[in-house]
Amino acid sequence: MNKKNDPIGIFDSGLGGLTTVKAVREALPQEDIIYFGDTARVPYGNRSRETLIRYVTQDIRLLLRFGVKAVVIACNTADSMAREEMIKRFYMPIVGVVDPAAKAAAQATRNGRIGVIGTNATIASGIYERLIPAENPSASVFCVPTPLLVPLVESGRIRKGDDVTENVLREYLLPLREKEIDTLVLGCTHYPLLTGIIEDILPGVTLINSGSTVTEKLKTVLAEKDLLTDNTAKGTVKYFVSDAPEVFAEHGGLFIGDSIASDVTRIEIE
Amino acid sequence: MNKKNDPIGIFDSGLGGLTTVKAVREALPQEDIIYFGDTARVPYGNRSRETLIRYVTQDIRLLLRFGVKAVVIACNTADSMAREEMIKRFYMPIVGVVDPAAKAAAQATRNGRIGVIGTNATIASGIYERLIPAENPSASVFCVPTPLLVPLVESGRIRKGDDVTENVLREYLLPLREKEIDTLVLGCTHYPLLTGIIEDILPGVTLINSGSTVTEKLKTVLAEKDLLTDNTAKGTVKYFVSDAPEVFAEHGGLFIGDSIASDVTRIEIE
Repeated sequence: MNKKNDPIGIFDSGLGGLTTVKAVREALPQEDIIYFGDTARVPYGNRSRETLIRYVTQDIRLLLRFGVKAVVIACNTADSMAREEMIKRFYMPIVGVVDPAAKAAAQATRNGRIGVIGTNATIASGIYERLIPAENPSASVFCVPTPLLVPLVESGRIRKGDDVTENVLREYLLPLREKEIDTLVLGCTHYPLLTGIIEDILPGVTLINSGSTVTEKLKTVLAEKDLLTDNTAKGTVKYFVSDAPEVFAEHGGLFIGDSIASDVTRIEIE
Repeated sequence: MNKKNDPIGIFDSGLGGLTTVKAVREALPQEDIIYFGDTARVPYGNRSRETLIRYVTQDIRLLLRFGVKAVVIACNTADSMAREEMIKRFYMPIVGVVDPAAKAAAQATRNGRIGVIGTNATIASGIYERLIPAENPSASVFCVPTPLLVPLVESGRIRKGDDVTENVLREYLLPLREKEIDTLVLGCTHYPLLTGIIEDILPGVTLINSGSTVTEKLKTVLAEKDLLTDNTAKGTVKYFVSDAPEVFAEHGGLFIGDSIASDVTRIEIE
């Protein structure tokens, strides 16, 4: 039985992974997508490794109920803490956002000075400090945990001119400006929503969107396993969340740039 | 079988309820306490009612495994969204932090102008706007959702001089100063840690600590049901959490003002 026309599963703790959905829709428009946002347990960024492994295992099992042919971990925290373990536990291809973002940053830098911002768990994992020099041995990597950014984005405080958000971002980013980075990894799929403010604080710095750099790798993996769809019509997206669908649909529409209200369903995790 | 020497159960989404533990230890020093912090699912402040009812039911069931004689809901969000339902589901006394805080505010005000800050869920429930006028019909209540305060406290950003925290609190509190409130309910058990900064922004305003005003009601309820302990030695406290005990012990020690590291154990929720 060929699985090539089965959907791709994409998941995140909440809204952030929608930046990946958007990018996959653009890169692979005929693919069907099942999205899961674990909104009853968001955020993942301060959880322990043990708890994250349990949550991510449940998230992937949930996607498997829909017969997905591959899974994208669209959450840097989940990817950095749990992907290795998931590859042992599951057979289908699992692609994470961290590897492609590290590679893109290693290739993009001209002066070899790369900043990374992420949740406490992602930064503590040390994953970007391992992966970027593996791609580009002359690169220096400067990591800053930025735990307040997810709460700010989830509160909708993403506009230029928001004093609090600008203040927080300046505190986090000015030390990176002093390091003279020319490339910054947005090491959490929520952060691309803050691009406008980040660009003002770090003018001329190349921003690496970990939510969207994953698409090329996904395409390669699917092609290798002969899992690219042969459908010719535009694919569909169905969204599932573990808490109230209304809130997710409202905020998610802003991420996706389109109304998704009729496509969001609440689902029990176990 | 008399349950009077069984422990009191106290729970919160995470650290906040430790303000209640501290107050109960002072008011009822001979009582044993079992504390549960649901750190694998913190924060509760943006969850839907349906999800909160599920979580709170599980939290109380977990405390019942330890044979608790009564339960204190030391979380305004859980109390405002789920207590009514819990009273239907369980037989033992359940005391919440919201009622006593509303009563204390209604009695404390001199000019009848009372502010309330809390999570999105607590404020959206409208509970303080119902309960305070029921105690003091001439009172005006001004409610402000303050969703960034729990992330700030959980990040340890509670010191005077922290630019971001001061900036956020000014934004939230200056509108209440304009309303000329003379009393402010700290409608989340995390907020007492921000007392220093709040007092600077609202000088002369009486702060009602919802984590500690509950003790008098707890004492009354236990006395009515003949459930006050007749132990004469100092009671013990055991702490259980659903995620890593180390982080909780470290931050919790600051709350309690004492080391609790050896008394914290991880436990599975279901």
